[in-house]
Amino acid sequence: MTLTSTPVDNGINLQALLDAREALGASPEAADFEWRASCTWMNGTHSRTTVEGFSGLGQEHTHLTPAVYDVDHPECFFSEDHGPTPTEIVLVGLAGCLTAGVAAVAQRRGIQLRSVTATLAGDLNVLGVLGADPDIRNGFSQIRVHFDIDADATPAEIEALVAGSQKRSAVYDALTNPTPVTVTVN
Amino acid sequence: MTLTSTPVDNGINLQALLDAREALGASPEAADFEWRASCTWMNGTHSRTTVEGFSGLGQEHTHLTPAVYDVDHPECFFSEDHGPTPTEIVLVGLAGCLTAGVAAVAQRRGIQLRSVTATLAGDLNVLGVLGADPDIRNGFSQIRVHFDIDADATPAEIEALVAGSQKRSAVYDALTNPTPVTVTVN
Repeated sequence: MTLTSTPVDNGINLQALLDAREALGASPEAADFEWRASCTWMNGTHSRTTVEGFSGLGQEHTHLTPAVYDVDHPECFFSEDHGPTPTEIVLVGLAGCLTAGVAAVAQRRGIQLRSVTATLAGDLNVLGVLGADPDIRNGFSQIRVHFDIDADATPAEIEALVAGSQKRSAVYDALTNPTPVTVTVN
Repeated sequence: MTLTSTPVDNGINLQALLDAREALGASPEAADFEWRASCTWMNGTHSRTTVEGFSGLGQEHTHLTPAVYDVDHPECFFSEDHGPTPTEIVLVGLAGCLTAGVAAVAQRRGIQLRSVTATLAGDLNVLGVLGADPDIRNGFSQIRVHFDIDADATPAEIEALVAGSQKRSAVYDALTNPTPVTVTVN
């Protein structure tokens, strides 16, 4: 028999999120966010992209630290490998989104997480991007995400955590459903 | 009358890419790449993802430098902003992909680039991810990419460069068309 219990703490401020949901439901225009990135071509397939400001809750915001990313193609593709490929960057976004979701859903359900790791793999046949086979798509034919989660919960509860995260993931949605992208120039 | 001309050089090894396309067309299984990422939950919405190895051309490869990314939610979302959001990371991937494509297509068409910048913005209403409005999707409602390109080319040729890049972009495809994502646990 336990007389005291440690409150579940996954580092998620659940009450603030629930309050925000309530408040934003009453003024939905404040829930419109614009996320941004600025990219400069360096040379060849190498580009450098900065993420710093965004808007939301009716105002401008700035990240505590601007983030700068070098993206390139690898040497086996005759490039200089100044950084990961664009496709790997997308996997980073998916990993971060689903993992944050696992923590948030665990907090909501009163489940203490001990550790969460995810390994991601995306299959891509480069005959598509090389324009060598019109039947092969340019993007991933499939992405696999595997979570290893240690938590105070049953295997079924842990499975449900991951399902709950998928259900509310911005990046999972952006990938699995069509996202309109408009591209303009000069 | 010009007696000599400077060869177009956008830092793209066009001949090697054309040779690779020819060679891979003859052994399509070598064109199967697997891109990877490994993510560790830190605390709250903060995760850290490493990109290092990948497979393709029938063998394992390692990037010259492993890349490590901190991803988080911002302070206005009651998180600690240890890095950009997952959605911003996706914009970085899209920026890198389309920009590399512009350089490759320019090289193919004999167009010398002087500068290329891209600004990206993605609209996302957070009532979706908060579970407050089932009619609002979790992901972007729209992504806008705007290129500014200075090149030895007419406006129409520059527009066609960007269109050519879109046509062969892995990340543009991954976003605009459904990508199968499977998620497993433990």
